[in-house]
Amino acid sequence: VDGRWAVADLGSNSFRLVVFEADGGAWQRTDEIYEAVRIGEGLQATGELGEAPMARGLAVLEVFSHFCEAAGIPPDRIDAVATSAIRDARNQAVFLARSPLRARVLSTEDEARYGHLAAVNSSTLADGVVLDLGGGSMQLVEVTGRRAAALQSWKLGAVRTTERFGLGDGPVKRKQLDAVREHVHRKLERAPWLAGRGGRLVAIGGTARNLAAAAQRAGGWPEFGVQGFVLERDALADLVERLAALPARQRARVDGIKPGRAEIILAGAAVIHAVLEHGGFDGAEVTEAGLREGVFFEHLLGRDRPLFDDVRRQSVLNLAARYGSHPDRSPHVAHVAKLALGLFDALAGAGLHEGDPAERELLWAASVLHDIGMTVDYDDHHKHSRYLLLSAGLPGFTPREVALVGQAVRFHRKGLTTMGPFEPLAQRGDGRRLARMAVLLRLAEDLERSRDQAVRGVRPEVDGEVVRLVLDVAPDATVQVPRWAAGREDELFGRAFGRSLAVA
Amino acid sequence: VDGRWAVADLGSNSFRLVVFEADGGAWQRTDEIYEAVRIGEGLQATGELGEAPMARGLAVLEVFSHFCEAAGIPPDRIDAVATSAIRDARNQAVFLARSPLRARVLSTEDEARYGHLAAVNSSTLADGVVLDLGGGSMQLVEVTGRRAAALQSWKLGAVRTTERFGLGDGPVKRKQLDAVREHVHRKLERAPWLAGRGGRLVAIGGTARNLAAAAQRAGGWPEFGVQGFVLERDALADLVERLAALPARQRARVDGIKPGRAEIILAGAAVIHAVLEHGGFDGAEVTEAGLREGVFFEHLLGRDRPLFDDVRRQSVLNLAARYGSHPDRSPHVAHVAKLALGLFDALAGAGLHEGDPAERELLWAASVLHDIGMTVDYDDHHKHSRYLLLSAGLPGFTPREVALVGQAVRFHRKGLTTMGPFEPLAQRGDGRRLARMAVLLRLAEDLERSRDQAVRGVRPEVDGEVVRLVLDVAPDATVQVPRWAAGREDELFGRAFGRSLAVA
Repeated sequence: VDGRWAVADLGSNSFRLVVFEADGGAWQRTDEIYEAVRIGEGLQATGELGEAPMARGLAVLEVFSHFCEAAGIPPDRIDAVATSAIRDARNQAVFLARSPLRARVLSTEDEARYGHLAAVNSSTLADGVVLDLGGGSMQLVEVTGRRAAALQSWKLGAVRTTERFGLGDGPVKRKQLDAVREHVHRKLERAPWLAGRGGRLVAIGGTARNLAAAAQRAGGWPEFGVQGFVLERDALADLVERLAALPARQRARVDGIKPGRAEIILAGAAVIHAVLEHGGFDGAEVTEAGLREGVFFEHLLGRDRPLFDDVRRQSVLNLAARYGSHPDRSPHVAHVAKLALGLFDALAGAGLHEGDPAERELLWAASVLHDIGMTVDYDDHHKHSRYLLLSAGLPGFTPREVALVGQAVRFHRKGLTTMGPFEPLAQRGDGRRLARMAVLLRLAEDLERSRDQAVRGVRPEVDGEVVRLVLDVAPDATVQVPRWAAGREDELFGRAFGRSLAVA
Repeated sequence: VDGRWAVADLGSNSFRLVVFEADGGAWQRTDEIYEAVRIGEGLQATGELGEAPMARGLAVLEVFSHFCEAAGIPPDRIDAVATSAIRDARNQAVFLARSPLRARVLSTEDEARYGHLAAVNSSTLADGVVLDLGGGSMQLVEVTGRRAAALQSWKLGAVRTTERFGLGDGPVKRKQLDAVREHVHRKLERAPWLAGRGGRLVAIGGTARNLAAAAQRAGGWPEFGVQGFVLERDALADLVERLAALPARQRARVDGIKPGRAEIILAGAAVIHAVLEHGGFDGAEVTEAGLREGVFFEHLLGRDRPLFDDVRRQSVLNLAARYGSHPDRSPHVAHVAKLALGLFDALAGAGLHEGDPAERELLWAASVLHDIGMTVDYDDHHKHSRYLLLSAGLPGFTPREVALVGQAVRFHRKGLTTMGPFEPLAQRGDGRRLARMAVLLRLAEDLERSRDQAVRGVRPEVDGEVVRLVLDVAPDATVQVPRWAAGREDELFGRAFGRSLAVA
């Protein structure tokens, strides 16, 4: 499956062509063409695709087709999928016959299934619900043991709801909003498994991403994308009120809402809020993956089991691979991770900390990613590593966890640790946790400072107030470099473990 | 010369090992070990290296030696150079005999020569003066036609001057500062070419870098490294006063001054200020390259002509090569640059702008670097490109020019251009200049959106208020993608050129 894949997503609101590149298990998006086609415009009234929207759609498909041809992506690597608007239009065949790209019309079940794949491959959701709100339809999937247990679809997409309830202008009155809410509640009765279900809900789609960005800014949260951000139900209710009070054109002035969504964002917000109410969810975890990633994952992983075994591990390794830091290909990175985790375990064994497995996993992630910023510049590469990490994101980790990994990476060379701009995300004990992560990563890096794996292992001996590191050194190797390097970590070690440090 | 090189710089204040990597004309620093050895401590009083400083120095050299061995850098690729303190010490031979790395002691002339190489290979200095202030000595080089015309050295290094005039504590009285100033002026009489010379002065060394960072912050300048920043004489005078008023330990509280330099920074500032006064210079252009780069450049380029032909071009291509964007290896990048410059020239020919060659060069740089951020993440790659560019810097360009290139890159996909956080660096006309650069880069990228070089060229036809782009298309190629893409640039084109745009 290595090489390039193109997925075209012909949605009710926009058409989007995304190019993915797969390389030995790692993958990334490498190109994207987006156009707000609004193919579904007027469909609500006539049941057909209009001439003008079809013409717009075909022009964009011409562009997609020529783009793929020029880029040398062969037809069997192009997967064009059409969703709600085209699915529901009586004159669907007319449009498809004229399309220069062969498109498959997804059934509601297939659409829901791809949303499910996107969500469970970019979050840790094992049991709960996936919500996918598009322009035309909304899918809800009940997830059990990561598998889709129930897949349902409603014609409650943001474009369609906007047209049906006349929410495209504004301000919108409470009465109109109440009508939407009642409508959604009534429609959801079709899903008996949903009412008052509670638990986790993961949301995908551009509407959810925009609303999360808006809530993030309104709440003053540190911003590094919306991946893993929880859009709380109360914050969403506030947004619905703010958006309803504005004329449609001004809705884009709400920080986080893109101009292309100004008209339809209120309807989307109202629908999602009603779903949260109906199902008794406190909020929606947002993920940046969407239908397109779902389609791609099926090609990447195969139809039989299109799930990553471990999403968090996959995220870290996928990012590391991009910068030559995959432990299977970098003995230095593998060794730093081994030494850091060895110290973590030994110090926990000696009773110096609790040995929390979640913290251990974050330390592993920081160890694997600590040097990715070297590709930017040697100077300040610890800061560059954090930048690359925050920019790309780590699906499956919460924003707080990403911030902890980022700060451990940022402090992997020097300085006293602080959560810095990520303080608002910190939980009780995170200051100490970060100090532990950073100093263990630093010691591992110090012991492997010559990048030759000469220090094969390290055993800490606790002697009262002093922790002495006993090094297991390869025959013929010398330890001047590791001893010199590790000799400088006393201060941070003291903060992290309340002991002083000696290197034997 | 491809592969790794290690340069060890055994200075009076610190020892530093830097690893460089060369690859087909491109180069970068890939590792660095720094230790504030202070080998020159006490030398002023005794004329000898003390036992304690020598022991510290030898321990660090052991580390360097083991590091190079472990890293597999062969002895003929390691160049250790010793400067003022070791050069001047009567017991130099004792220290060198014990050193695990074979070090060569640089003559004052060689030291000045390497400083000259560092400066002229990282700035556009052709005629002027290079100032290199180290811990032990200060070198001044008169530069004519990029060559060193006169090379002189004085025992006026920051450590030495600190010890001699007792500036290591504080606050320091005006009388003491006056004594330093007079001393420097008197010593400089040895260089008859210097007095009142004026013109450009480029400064290298950690003292100059720290002072530039402090002046940058005090002045509220946008911060992206000190490369090319001009430390004005008046701003330096202010810094001398601020630093003199503080106890030595508190000097590091002046934003930009590193703690390891707190003791000696005042002496360094006072010496540089006196040089500027004596030579009649308005300020000092700072460069981040130093003695170590000078030594490396000689290996990279050869002793016969160790100068880059064109520093600015080299900076852009060196950075591009790191991210697979070198035009010789990326047909897409080469073609975008060709189309952008073609449009620039044609529109200048049509009288729509002045065709300033400096602007043309910045447009070329932006064209070559526009996609380097793709390695970070496809989303927001325009912002990532800017980040990578600002982080690595572009030696030979002024901060204003780097900001213009950075903003052109940042707006190479969408949005209306603004100088944003770099407004304080802007000169009259830069808003319009940036709009021109960005829209031409965007049009070039649009026409080459399929990355297949199908649009071979473009000819703008000016027809009253409309500029029509006539495309020269390869046989059998289609233009749906370029036409679609370029059709969206009307607004920015209007701002840049006051005309509307049509694609024929």
